[in-house]
Amino acid sequence: MLVVMQSHATEEQIRAVCERIEALGLRAHPIPGAARTAVGITGNSGEIETGTLESMPGVIECIPVSKPYKLVSRDVKEENTIVRVPTPSGEVTFGGTAVAIVGGPCAVESREQAFTIAERVRDAGARLFRGGAYKPRTSPYSFQGLCEQGLQILAEVRAKFGLGIVTEAIDNESLELVEKYADVIQIGARNMQNFSLLKRAGHARKPVLLKRGMSATLDEFLMAAEYVMSEGNYQVILCERGVRTFTDHTRNTLDLSVVPAVQRRSHLPIVVDPSHGTGRRNKVLPLSRAAVAVGADGILVEVHHDPAHALSDGPQSILPEEFEQLIGEARSIAAVLGRTLN
Amino acid sequence: MLVVMQSHATEEQIRAVCERIEALGLRAHPIPGAARTAVGITGNSGEIETGTLESMPGVIECIPVSKPYKLVSRDVKEENTIVRVPTPSGEVTFGGTAVAIVGGPCAVESREQAFTIAERVRDAGARLFRGGAYKPRTSPYSFQGLCEQGLQILAEVRAKFGLGIVTEAIDNESLELVEKYADVIQIGARNMQNFSLLKRAGHARKPVLLKRGMSATLDEFLMAAEYVMSEGNYQVILCERGVRTFTDHTRNTLDLSVVPAVQRRSHLPIVVDPSHGTGRRNKVLPLSRAAVAVGADGILVEVHHDPAHALSDGPQSILPEEFEQLIGEARSIAAVLGRTLN
Amino acid sequence: MLVVMQSHATEEQIRAVCERIEALGLRAHPIPGAARTAVGITGNSGEIETGTLESMPGVIECIPVSKPYKLVSRDVKEENTIVRVPTPSGEVTFGGTAVAIVGGPCAVESREQAFTIAERVRDAGARLFRGGAYKPRTSPYSFQGLCEQGLQILAEVRAKFGLGIVTEAIDNESLELVEKYADVIQIGARNMQNFSLLKRAGHARKPVLLKRGMSATLDEFLMAAEYVMSEGNYQVILCERGVRTFTDHTRNTLDLSVVPAVQRRSHLPIVVDPSHGTGRRNKVLPLSRAAVAVGADGILVEVHHDPAHALSDGPQSILPEEFEQLIGEARSIAAVLGRTLN
Amino acid sequence: MLVVMQSHATEEQIRAVCERIEALGLRAHPIPGAARTAVGITGNSGEIETGTLESMPGVIECIPVSKPYKLVSRDVKEENTIVRVPTPSGEVTFGGTAVAIVGGPCAVESREQAFTIAERVRDAGARLFRGGAYKPRTSPYSFQGLCEQGLQILAEVRAKFGLGIVTEAIDNESLELVEKYADVIQIGARNMQNFSLLKRAGHARKPVLLKRGMSATLDEFLMAAEYVMSEGNYQVILCERGVRTFTDHTRNTLDLSVVPAVQRRSHLPIVVDPSHGTGRRNKVLPLSRAAVAVGADGILVEVHHDPAHALSDGPQSILPEEFEQLIGEARSIAAVLGRTLN
Repeated sequence: MLVVMQSHATEEQIRAVCERIEALGLRAHPIPGAARTAVGITGNSGEIETGTLESMPGVIECIPVSKPYKLVSRDVKEENTIVRVPTPSGEVTFGGTAVAIVGGPCAVESREQAFTIAERVRDAGARLFRGGAYKPRTSPYSFQGLCEQGLQILAEVRAKFGLGIVTEAIDNESLELVEKYADVIQIGARNMQNFSLLKRAGHARKPVLLKRGMSATLDEFLMAAEYVMSEGNYQVILCERGVRTFTDHTRNTLDLSVVPAVQRRSHLPIVVDPSHGTGRRNKVLPLSRAAVAVGADGILVEVHHDPAHALSDGPQSILPEEFEQLIGEARSIAAVLGRTLN
Repeated sequence: MLVVMQSHATEEQIRAVCERIEALGLRAHPIPGAARTAVGITGNSGEIETGTLESMPGVIECIPVSKPYKLVSRDVKEENTIVRVPTPSGEVTFGGTAVAIVGGPCAVESREQAFTIAERVRDAGARLFRGGAYKPRTSPYSFQGLCEQGLQILAEVRAKFGLGIVTEAIDNESLELVEKYADVIQIGARNMQNFSLLKRAGHARKPVLLKRGMSATLDEFLMAAEYVMSEGNYQVILCERGVRTFTDHTRNTLDLSVVPAVQRRSHLPIVVDPSHGTGRRNKVLPLSRAAVAVGADGILVEVHHDPAHALSDGPQSILPEEFEQLIGEARSIAAVLGRTLN
Repeated sequence: MLVVMQSHATEEQIRAVCERIEALGLRAHPIPGAARTAVGITGNSGEIETGTLESMPGVIECIPVSKPYKLVSRDVKEENTIVRVPTPSGEVTFGGTAVAIVGGPCAVESREQAFTIAERVRDAGARLFRGGAYKPRTSPYSFQGLCEQGLQILAEVRAKFGLGIVTEAIDNESLELVEKYADVIQIGARNMQNFSLLKRAGHARKPVLLKRGMSATLDEFLMAAEYVMSEGNYQVILCERGVRTFTDHTRNTLDLSVVPAVQRRSHLPIVVDPSHGTGRRNKVLPLSRAAVAVGADGILVEVHHDPAHALSDGPQSILPEEFEQLIGEARSIAAVLGRTLN
Repeated sequence: MLVVMQSHATEEQIRAVCERIEALGLRAHPIPGAARTAVGITGNSGEIETGTLESMPGVIECIPVSKPYKLVSRDVKEENTIVRVPTPSGEVTFGGTAVAIVGGPCAVESREQAFTIAERVRDAGARLFRGGAYKPRTSPYSFQGLCEQGLQILAEVRAKFGLGIVTEAIDNESLELVEKYADVIQIGARNMQNFSLLKRAGHARKPVLLKRGMSATLDEFLMAAEYVMSEGNYQVILCERGVRTFTDHTRNTLDLSVVPAVQRRSHLPIVVDPSHGTGRRNKVLPLSRAAVAVGADGILVEVHHDPAHALSDGPQSILPEEFEQLIGEARSIAAVLGRTLN
């Protein structure tokens, strides 16, 4: 259920509507838009009696929402959400005109490795650095990340190179720390339906980058974002990273058509990870170009100066010089769509 | 790496091998078999120097393990693992001659509902009761379970009807409680690669029923079990519950061929959940028969006396009278394979 | 559109209805049932004016059919279709109480090979022999079958061992010959949507065994049968042979739940091919048991006395002694469902 | 097996090698390259004795080919194959620098419809027209195309608007006619493994546009092209048109990563069909941009002036004005890759 306010509705009227909703035992989510504010209602198990709400001052109408998601929907908020990530070298936005570029290694392996790559990523023109401190690995015997030590290295990267930090949390404990050290909290594909973690991320004060699960439908993907938003954190960036299909020429099948599909249904920004999406170094550049061409709000790319010795995902990391080329090509294609890089 | 002991190796010799392994900074997992004990080694990132181990008293040989999994493998333990679940009405086993039947509602909705169904499940001849107190739901606005109150009701079901309890944990907090109240800790499909939760389950003292993820390969499924075992809990029951494919005539595609495939590679028991595996009431009986015929060590079936009003998964729950019929048919088919029901 | 006749409608009344339909430029398909005859109408691109038909003598009602298929549907014909295949050693039926067993090599390689296997298949108790004379192979450089010479060998197998013959046609030319030599015309999975071939099979006077395409939905599968039936051949046997999914532990994923799904929507018999469905010899027996348990009307199994030297699909062929065991187990499980083998 | 000739080998030496091969009962396929000629050998079931060939004048070496395909492989021919399609308004190439644009309706419905769309397609700048005269439809009751009458209309379109014609053949009979009327013979996704049809296309004198099957792996896709080439027709254009996966937000999942994958393994050109690949009008433009950005050699787009009344595939056809916009965007993105449109 969505309560749409008049464009000239006062703050007080909006507050009154929210209070009435809470008094009904439900949760109110005021969502300010450019023209007007809408108030999403969650927590109802069935129908809501709309009479009392519709007759309140400042209310235009009450719209029952048929899709299972509410807060993520364009029905609730027509214009794009712009997620703003402050970095030492200026704000990076997701969902506006600019296309965001995030580069860095799969995993933080050492201070030296992180610094080497960060320097190249910054020099190539990117302002966001990715790198895992907590690594969800298929095998318990694979490198699991440097944990808090890795986060500390990432904090040094921010300080030294002026890069904002995107890194993954894998459970409530690590999320606590990631929220403290990083600028964007990543939730990985394997945890897309770890609802306990999603709810915890909903209480975080940092933006959440939510990766699509390996076999998640569009609805399930948006519902996972809804879990985060329903707890109060509206700063969600969606990320396509390939889905699992019968094909064997790439590690996953990058589903670029989900980008315009998300953009039709949701106001949230969506980025693409062509590194996990293909799992093959030689496909990262072509698919990065395609991601920008299809209209993605950003790309997330694994970069490693020595992929042969990477502790994880070497075969899909590109070299720093390829990353530079990628940024050049992405910029040219973004321009065709009337966009810039940021 | 696997250290195979002589059949007449002494306890002391085995202990000495384990101590040597631990002294190398690795973990030793003694796995007693009918004929001999093998000691699995985990924690190594690369090759292990086998010379010192192979020359120790009581050791036959050291076998490098090529598959990514070790403790779950038949290479490590040739005979079937039999997981024993004590219930007030006697022990139920998974992995032996007997086929285990688990019945109950998707979710515990109320004491009355649980008792009504439990009585019918017990009368039909089953000795294990399933029912969710914590429900991972696609939507944050769907019924999420009664949580600890649900666990208390399940404890009452055990006391009153003599049924062992199988119920799901969704995060570290709920696992703590589930371990306290239940007889078998279920890890759901969506959490099959929630490695943090798997490790926590590896420290539990109760058997773990691990459901296959919606798009998990056989190797990933076994590796998830390996996570649990590598932390010391060897009582793992695998569960096929359908995978996600292009088909639309069932909710998931039940992959019964995974049963013999698991049995070739692993010594762990494997059961089948035809309720989630099909998502359609009218397919539960035929696929339950097929699951027993293919050689599964048990079946997990959703039963509800009033599916139309179930708070979750009504369309795939069968009626108590259908459950009785199912047990009869399962018993007859089990007999063809030289098995009984338990 | 379906015209339902009264149970006591005369032949003449039915004929009059058919003539009226044909006069409208449409095709009439009288389908006699146990209680009454229904007349399916095909060839209409949109709505049909039902007034004139509904007022004709002997007509109860005209039912618009919402599903895209008509002739295959249980709406048109409530009771099971029983496809009867005459063999030198008596009639074999598909769709009745008895479960049909079809055994034989993937491909006919030589008279000697065919005779050797046929003898074992017959001795095991089967009355239908399968073997390809035309082999659709992924590579143009693989063995493509003995063609007409293979059909002649199959005809000798029928004469010498009293077995009915099931063999595949791959185009209009081979269908002509297969119709001449064989008892059942098989259309393979790769040709399930070769509509030109399906129409040609619709004019054949022999039953058609139609395999499900590798990524065919239930509706597409039934529509392929509808193509055959719409040309006048109502003797269609459906065959599940595994679908393509992300899994890698079997060659295809055998979708046994399609058996009850077909049986709900269609009156046509459905059989299972566990050889192609798994692609692994050691899975053929367990999945054959499961196929009978789920309610299939028959199973189609590849048998070879020397699989290591088979010219095609050796890895999925079972040995003659395994085939004997399979028949024994199938018989016992069929009995649980109140069925026999034939 | 591949016989590589010296760069200065004479015509006579090449002919001698071919004759020797044929004398061995095999087929020789001389494949001229920029630097040298290679001779592919097909028709061998096992190993070939290479001694006699390797010692012949003009031969450098004999390379055994491990991949199942030969003629399609870059091992056989390193530089790109450029397929040249003559049209009344000049040659269109596939596989060179220029990106080819093909536009037109799903099906030819009438002369008027074809002319209306052809005019817009030509005015937008395209030189190839697509339109089906033979339509493989899931239902036997759907519009199946105008058949030869449709081909005649396409011939008129060529004459009147100067457009080359791409149209589908569905069996040997229609292929005969399509070869006569059209400039490029299309083989549809459902017939990608109709090997009888592929062989017939291998004898045609017109280029073949081969669509990827709905669940075809890369190897199967290339092997289908190998069937055509092994019969002597080397003018094959591959076409990605979406594969079948679990996703439901598009009709198929467009697998753009197959474009660089094909380009690594094969010298054949590859184009993309974003209309079937998404099945949604609003996704055709973004995915067309992405197809050009990923490096495709062309795009095949359904255009209809009145999609609401199209007899087939209306929901995925774009309007002529959208097609103009598409060509503009494609041109700008092609320029980023150093390519033009043709």
